[in-house]
Formats: sequence, structure tokens, C-alpha cells
Amino acid sequence: MMRPEEQLERIKFGVAEFISDEDLLKKLKKGQPLNIKLGADPTRPDIHIGHTVVINKLRTFQELGHKVYFLIGDFTAMIGDPSGKNTTRPMLTREEIEENGRTYAKQIFKILDPEKTEIVYNSSWIGKMTPAEFIRMSAQYTVAQMLERDDFTKRYKSGTPIGIHEFLYPLTQGYDSVALKADVELGGTDQKFNLLVGRAMQSAYGQEAQCVLTMPILEGIDGVNKMSKSLDNYISVVDTPKDMFGKTMRISDDLMYRWYELLTDITANQLSQLKTDVNEKRKHPREVKVNLAKFLIKRFHSEAAAQAAEDEFNRIFVEKGLPDDVPEFEVEAEAQVGLPALMVKAGLVASNGEGSRLIQGGGVQIDSEKISDPKLKMDLKSGQSFVVKAGKKKFVKIKVK
Amino acid sequence: MMRPEEQLERIKFGVAEFISDEDLLKKLKKGQPLNIKLGADPTRPDIHIGHTVVINKLRTFQELGHKVYFLIGDFTAMIGDPSGKNTTRPMLTREEIEENGRTYAKQIFKILDPEKTEIVYNSSWIGKMTPAEFIRMSAQYTVAQMLERDDFTKRYKSGTPIGIHEFLYPLTQGYDSVALKADVELGGTDQKFNLLVGRAMQSAYGQEAQCVLTMPILEGIDGVNKMSKSLDNYISVVDTPKDMFGKTMRISDDLMYRWYELLTDITANQLSQLKTDVNEKRKHPREVKVNLAKFLIKRFHSEAAAQAAEDEFNRIFVEKGLPDDVPEFEVEAEAQVGLPALMVKAGLVASNGEGSRLIQGGGVQIDSEKISDPKLKMDLKSGQSFVVKAGKKKFVKIKVK
Repeated sequence: MMRPEEQLERIKFGVAEFISDEDLLKKLKKGQPLNIKLGADPTRPDIHIGHTVVINKLRTFQELGHKVYFLIGDFTAMIGDPSGKNTTRPMLTREEIEENGRTYAKQIFKILDPEKTEIVYNSSWIGKMTPAEFIRMSAQYTVAQMLERDDFTKRYKSGTPIGIHEFLYPLTQGYDSVALKADVELGGTDQKFNLLVGRAMQSAYGQEAQCVLTMPILEGIDGVNKMSKSLDNYISVVDTPKDMFGKTMRISDDLMYRWYELLTDITANQLSQLKTDVNEKRKHPREVKVNLAKFLIKRFHSEAAAQAAEDEFNRIFVEKGLPDDVPEFEVEAEAQVGLPALMVKAGLVASNGEGSRLIQGGGVQIDSEKISDPKLKMDLKSGQSFVVKAGKKKFVKIKVK
Repeated sequence: MMRPEEQLERIKFGVAEFISDEDLLKKLKKGQPLNIKLGADPTRPDIHIGHTVVINKLRTFQELGHKVYFLIGDFTAMIGDPSGKNTTRPMLTREEIEENGRTYAKQIFKILDPEKTEIVYNSSWIGKMTPAEFIRMSAQYTVAQMLERDDFTKRYKSGTPIGIHEFLYPLTQGYDSVALKADVELGGTDQKFNLLVGRAMQSAYGQEAQCVLTMPILEGIDGVNKMSKSLDNYISVVDTPKDMFGKTMRISDDLMYRWYELLTDITANQLSQLKTDVNEKRKHPREVKVNLAKFLIKRFHSEAAAQAAEDEFNRIFVEKGLPDDVPEFEVEAEAQVGLPALMVKAGLVASNGEGSRLIQGGGVQIDSEKISDPKLKMDLKSGQSFVVKAGKKKFVKIKVK
């Protein structure tokens, strides 16, 4: 095993917050593999690459020789929200939970080593607690401590009801750390409170408290908002290689470094070198971004798929002089759409008339072929995509849903 | 069965608060015996007559044909306070709980009809709940509602920790009403919040909500503070007939009516008649108080004991011209105590010298016998009691512990 101090350095690279250096060094110095815990919500098994930031950190732990517990929080999922007020927390059957567990496994094992990963379900211990054990668990935390959690504070102050069972969920999550004898628990920054409950619970049950490691929330391809499905600024781990490549090529240079830090297995030194190489023009940012895109495709698909995606990108964009960051515009499949109308829809021109005049003047290309007929009708078929160039500087990649 | 409206009138006599007339009439009109619930804390099985106020009301329900569940809250008692912070809530073994249950039974069956009483232990349903059922139960009440309970409000505001398990106890108590399908729950005024939780829980579980009946807290023999062991102003249900008689005779006339209302089976009309008889001098207050004392002794001992106590009282006090309200003073057993020193201790005189002079002047009597020797040494033996008269108006009943 690597020296504790070196391990600590690798582990802390890219984290948002870590509690604490001292505690982890103490644990590492025992020279035994540590128990690393990550809890997952079994109601939402479809993950995008933003979710893989913490999984990527789990991989680092595995590479350092530690054991990962991927915990599926099925206890609460099997109950749902018994107050009936929170429809975002549906009740799942045993079958659905196991199906979701398999979906998770398929996704996380693209990153994690199955040999060093144990998938566990918390219903197997929480579900077996007696009421007396439940009471004992609840005695280890106070109402005031619980109300310090941001969302509880806000809801309590604004008069929005908080069911008492909602106080029990962080406790059971904390108790999971006791059951697993976790040494480190990972989560997003929004999970910090719950992870700290785990520390408190372990101390209350006479265990050494776990270290708490939060990872930053990944920004989406817009570079501004957090990656999320609802904002449509995400890359799904099941996106096609072509989409992964295209979306990655559109991110800013700043975001590119951020993604390297949080999504690849780059080290601090390597990242710093990369930045120097770009700044001193030894490397072109496009090349660095292409490597990032290929890394992601290789991880979630294959090396061949990564190469194929690069080749296709070169053929369509580089060789035809298109920029990397052509914005995408999605349209519904439709027959016999006039080209000027499509250009209006995609925001390339302000009116059909302007579109027709631009075509007549020779200023419009589709996939680098000049178009001369302003009355051209197109059949937009599902899955199709092509780049429309309008004038010298306007490009849109039309994608048919 | 008595007409619902008449039952309601008898039930409401003497109560502090009742929720609600309408609900109870609806239940009574079904013409079935109702389930009446009273919860008891198994950690404190020794009761004084202040505690019998609610038991007396249970008796009224039984006389009206209803069924009483005397619930021993052993679930929490078997857990104790798992936070370890509240030493007033000790953890009891199964054996201790059963022993306390027998003690309760012995005491309450002096008032209640065993045929119409079922003693139940809530561990038999709460102790068997699954964690999922526990969560479901907790979802039926909110944090804000719970923090409205007076003691929680105060503790939260003052920063005194409230363990989360303390929120679970009122819920389990409320769930007891669901398990028993309670129609009415009784308690002291300090229990109102918890009784209302029972209403909420029953509604949440699809049952008709129970009526809530709180009884006033009985004032102790001082007529000012609530009856309590620590204030030493109580009558225990295991006090000797002589003590019960003596203590009852010392209460004020106002308190006497209050005790009639809350401790006997008098009706509203009878009490009103009694007051009129005293006011119009048809009855002497002493006679009314003697009857109250005899009622209590008859209830907790026997009719013969009640008569014997009255006879002894007459012999010691009435026939010898002592007032009814001689204050008591407790002393430790001790040999060869000087009478003047004892009189100082009991507050009858300011100094040994004053005591000696009073004895020499013929102003001191013990149990109506004049004492002339100022050097008299007394052997105070445990259980002994006697009245010392000093001067014309000062009396103390000395009681040796």
C-alpha cells in the first residue's frame, strides 16, 4: 500500500470538503484496507456523468487498496413517504428495488472494480431492528441538531410541515455507517449533514467516527448550472459515443479542466502539467478536449468506440472547417419542412424571407454543401443530424428527435 | 344504560376539560359500551389520593356500563432513557414491571370494578411493531406540532437538548389508542397534549377520534400546592386510617368541597345540596369533613376502620376540646429527649428556658394530661404519636418516624 500521506493527497484531490486529515491518517496508519461507504437512492437508478464524480472517487479508494460498500437505501424506498405528502419518494416493490440494483451495478462497474465492491441493502439490518433498538438509535441525536439541516431549518421557519419520520431517515442513514463499520463515507456537498450524522452515530455506538468526504456538484455542459436532466445540460452514462463526443467538445476550456479533475483518473501533478502545456501552446485545447471525450467514451463504451467517435468528428467538423462548439438544436421528426422555416426555428435567421434571400445569395450550407434552392423541402427523420451554416459565423447542428 | 345526555352530564362533572360533548354524544348514541383508556407510568406504582382523581372518573364510566383499559406503559419503561440523560426514567426489568403492575392492580381495584377493567401492557403491540410500521406511525405527526407541547417549546427555546426518541414516546402513546380502539382517554391536565396526539393518530389510522377528558390536579392538604410526595402534603392510599382521618380533618372547608367533587362518587346535585346545608347551618363543616374522611378510609381500608378512626378522633380531639386542624410535626425516634427541647424543635416555644417556665406554670399538656416536671425525659418510639398543647392556643401533633 502507498504511504498514508501520499494516499491522503490522492484522496483529497478534487474534493469539496474533507473531515479530517488527522482522522484519515490515523485510520490509514493501521495498514488495513478501509471500509468506504456510498449510499444510493434506489428510486433513481439512471445516472448521468455528474453522478459519477463520487463513484470516480470510490475508484481512487479501490486503487489504493480499500473496500467499497455501495449501499442501496432500500429500507426507505420500500416504505415510500408514508405521510403521502411527498410524491417524489415513491414506494418500490422488492422486485423494482432489485431491478434498480442491477441497473446501478451495470453502470457503476464501468468505473469500479467488482472484486473490491460489495453491493449492500440497508433493509437487511434496518428492517430487522426492534422498536426498542429504533428508540435507542433515535436517542443519539437531538431535535435541535436535526433542525440545523438547511432544508429542515427553512421548512420549519416557513411553516412547511416536516413529518417526524423525516427525522428518522437521516438517523437510519447514520446507523448504516455503524452497521458497515464505515471508515469513510462519500457524498455530494448536499449530503454533508447526513454524513455527519453517521459520524455522531458511530461515536454513540462506541465506534471510531468515519471520515466525511464530499465531492463538488459537477457543472453541466453549459458550465453554469449543475448537471441535471431537467436542465438538459447533461451527458448520460448511456448516451451514444457520438453524443458523448459532441457534448464534450462543446464545453468551455475552464470546464474541461474541471471535468478532468472530477471525472478522470488524472492526478494533481498531471492536471497541472496539462494546463501548463496548453498555456505555453505545447498543446491545443481542442486536442485536450478530444482526449477527455475519448476517456469518457472509453469508460462507458469502449476504446474502439472512442476512436470511431473521434474519426467521425474529424470527418464532419474538423475537415470541413466547422468549429467544435456548434450548438445543437432539437426538432421533431416531420416531412416536407421548408429550409427557411427550419432556419427560423433554429434561430439562424429572423424570418422566412431573410432565410430565402440568404440561400439565394449562396450563404447557406448543409453539412458543408452549399444549398441554392430557397424552396427546398426536407424530410426530417428521427435520429438524423446535420449542421446548417448560415452566413459566415452562424452554425447549428440540427438533431431530429 | 342511562340516556346519553344524562351520562354526559355525570361524566363532565368535575373535569378540567372535555373534548367534546358532540363527539361523546355521538359515541354514546350507538348504545354500546365504550372503551375507556387510562395510561399509567409503571416506574411509579405508589399512588397518593391525588392520583385517584382520574381513577375515580374511570369508576364513573364503569358505573355507566363502559369498559376500562388500565394501560401500563411498559414499552418505554423497559427501554428507560437510552440517551442516559434522564435518570428519572429508569429502565425496569420484566419482573419489576409485573410487580409494579400487581401493585397498581391492588390499589386501583379499591376503586374500580375488576369485572369491567382490563389491565394491558403496551409492549404487547408497540414491542412487536416492525421498523416500517414505526416509520409509518411517525409520519402521522409533524415536528412543528410536537414542538407545540409546552415542555418541548421551553426546552427548545432555552437550548436544552430534546432527544429525537422523546418525540417518539407521545406517538407510541397515541398509537396505544389506535391499538385499543379507545373511545375516551383520561388524564391529568398535564397530559392534554399527549391525549390529543391519540386523537390525531386514530384519525390517521382511519378510526373515529377518541374523546379527551382531563381531570384537574388535586391540591394537597395545604390547599395551595398540588398534592405531591415531595411537598409532603399528600395522603397515600396506603396511609393508616388514623393518618387519613387526621390529614383530612386538617383541610380547609373550600378544599373539602373540592375533594368531595374529585374523590367521592357524589353527584353535582348532591354537592350543591351539601354546600347549601352548611351555609344554612343545617350541617356543621366538621360533620361534612368527618364524612369525607370516613369515605376515603372506607374506600382504601374498610367501613369498620372508618368508624374506628372517627371514634379515636373523637376520643383524642373532640372530647378533649382540641381543634380539628392540629398541625403535625415529625421527629426521629430518640431516647431520653427533654420535653422543653422537643417543644423548641416543634416550634411551640422559642427556647428551652421558655419551655421549662411554661411547664412550671402548668401551661403544657400531652394528650390532654397536664405535665408539671420541666426535666421530664421522653423516649420517642417509632410509630408513636401524641398531641402537645403549649399555652391556650398552640397545639402540635408529634409523630415519631
